[in-house]
Amino acid sequence: MSGPRYTKLAQSLPASVPFVGPETQERARGRPFDARIGANESVFGPSPLAIKAMSDAAADVWKYGDPENHDLRAALAAHHKIPFENIMVGEGVDALLGYLVRLLINPGDRVVTSAGAYPTFNFHVAGYGGDLVTVPYRDDAEDPVALVEKAAEVGAKLVYLANPDNPMASWHQAKAVQAAIERVPEGCLFLLDEAYIEFAPDGTAPPFDVSDDRVIRMRTFSKAYGMAGARVGYAIGHADLISAFNKIRNHFGMCRISQAGALAALKDQDYLASVVASVATARMEISRIASENGLTALPSATNFVAIDCGHDADFARAVVNGLIARGVFVRMPFAPPQDRCIRVSAGKPDDLAKFAAALPDALADALADARLA
Amino acid sequence: MSGPRYTKLAQSLPASVPFVGPETQERARGRPFDARIGANESVFGPSPLAIKAMSDAAADVWKYGDPENHDLRAALAAHHKIPFENIMVGEGVDALLGYLVRLLINPGDRVVTSAGAYPTFNFHVAGYGGDLVTVPYRDDAEDPVALVEKAAEVGAKLVYLANPDNPMASWHQAKAVQAAIERVPEGCLFLLDEAYIEFAPDGTAPPFDVSDDRVIRMRTFSKAYGMAGARVGYAIGHADLISAFNKIRNHFGMCRISQAGALAALKDQDYLASVVASVATARMEISRIASENGLTALPSATNFVAIDCGHDADFARAVVNGLIARGVFVRMPFAPPQDRCIRVSAGKPDDLAKFAAALPDALADALADARLA
Repeated sequence: MSGPRYTKLAQSLPASVPFVGPETQERARGRPFDARIGANESVFGPSPLAIKAMSDAAADVWKYGDPENHDLRAALAAHHKIPFENIMVGEGVDALLGYLVRLLINPGDRVVTSAGAYPTFNFHVAGYGGDLVTVPYRDDAEDPVALVEKAAEVGAKLVYLANPDNPMASWHQAKAVQAAIERVPEGCLFLLDEAYIEFAPDGTAPPFDVSDDRVIRMRTFSKAYGMAGARVGYAIGHADLISAFNKIRNHFGMCRISQAGALAALKDQDYLASVVASVATARMEISRIASENGLTALPSATNFVAIDCGHDADFARAVVNGLIARGVFVRMPFAPPQDRCIRVSAGKPDDLAKFAAALPDALADALADARLA
Repeated sequence: MSGPRYTKLAQSLPASVPFVGPETQERARGRPFDARIGANESVFGPSPLAIKAMSDAAADVWKYGDPENHDLRAALAAHHKIPFENIMVGEGVDALLGYLVRLLINPGDRVVTSAGAYPTFNFHVAGYGGDLVTVPYRDDAEDPVALVEKAAEVGAKLVYLANPDNPMASWHQAKAVQAAIERVPEGCLFLLDEAYIEFAPDGTAPPFDVSDDRVIRMRTFSKAYGMAGARVGYAIGHADLISAFNKIRNHFGMCRISQAGALAALKDQDYLASVVASVATARMEISRIASENGLTALPSATNFVAIDCGHDADFARAVVNGLIARGVFVRMPFAPPQDRCIRVSAGKPDDLAKFAAALPDALADALADARLA
């Protein structure tokens, strides 16, 4: 045998990517998108104070970032009124999900999630050889009770719930989440991904209880704080679990500029509130555009809207492709029956005007395709 | 049992950190360092063009970075005159080392390195359960032939050589490295860490041969390019090996601002040359200060100098602590007999003046300690 000796697990994995990036699509089509409303990024951008902090930090980037993320963790602790030692900052929620899976999952260990939920989590589970067991959505929402019941049935070590959900934008009230947590089987960790929580109504997030070692929660600066490209996420959980990340994490993995930006962004809660308001307006406009075209927008507690296109996945895919061909970057859910929808991120009025302009033709093309098929 | 069910490997690992960050030390001492010349960061900073690119990119950080790192990889391919598909960009060499170990190493698999070489590599090997086998330095340099002989003896899957070396700053000519590569046993990958290569004399780096699946090379923007806090490293190797990273890497892990900064930094080779010249001047000044204090500076092909303090590790540690107490952040090698040295990074004249001012007293204190002991 020649060449490196990969692990059996590494040999068995496909070279895959959870999402194709919009830049890849732009290179393929030979020009940039006119509206970038497909990746649930925040077109409203970060706080001006965060932009200034990042610009100011650029000249100091010759220094490694603080591996303890001390100042950001201290600010998060004060913000959430929880102790410092219950917070782990990482290179985006994606990296934290990878670390968490690595801490818990050996090949063959069971992990439960919803069919069609966050693909990057699934990528990490597969990457450590975990056995992913899925539960269907119920009424276009993740089903907390079914998730924990399945976890008990298969002896899962980890069960994933996003609240609010991506890609459907649906959500559960805190009491429903808490009821599910009460039913988490012993030895199973409940992973509550709250990437979109800042957009959700009051009463969506359970109060923090960092003494509860059955739960870990993930938050991010990528969505409401408008800093997806900075890669700053954080986990909140029991101190023992938070400390366990130190066994394996890339201690010097955080970008120093991103640390400075997140700290400034957190302090500008007024700006955050303005983004949440702008997103609410954008959601209404997306719903209006959907209705105008005879489509149904689903309720949303996030910075995006799932639009039911009223047909099957092939039809929705044709609509997505029609929009992309017209310079409007959107995506769609992966699993049936949610893949009858397209997913449109909140945009500025100009972005949504382009969406509104492109949608009728994209729909007409999709209908023509469907008639031919 | 209550709480999460960690893997046996995760349970067995200590919560450790390869390096204590200078910020941690600053918090402990209650005030910042006057000279930060301990982590081989580049006090000369990044290119002004890179600083501008990063400042300009801050407002766009609401977008995720391109997961393919297309533009940076294309620029690196042109710069090194190698194909695009032979380059993998990652969140610093540290992250790439972690991915590489994950691809190859199962618990119990053997990995060979030098006793006292880069601790973060060892952290990753331990983190995946690898069995680390060490070879001593020879004449304060890593010993390429002994490394590959040991790899053959123990059936290692991976053997690590940094050229130039950290922490000793020693180096081998390309032909010595190539001779070692020719003797790499079948099924063993030679990991050539060239983090400091830009500071080394011509003839230190072997020519690239990306058809050779026995070798992977690591380069970084953290050292000569002055962007340690940005977390941008890259690996060069056989296309199959480079592609294998896509099975497991955090595809959206790169900071978008860092991508922009690295691209601009790479284009400013004049600035890079000026940094290399400034570092050469600083090395001479560090050597002069060492001599002035009766100490011996070792030859260096890096942006730091190992200074032989002429006694044992306890003495060197006392010197390091004496310098730190006087506001000068330096570090020292971890393993005997190299731990008789302290390691001083290149500084600006003002940094080195502070080092020169603090060293005599730090030495006097260390000598007094040694007499008392």
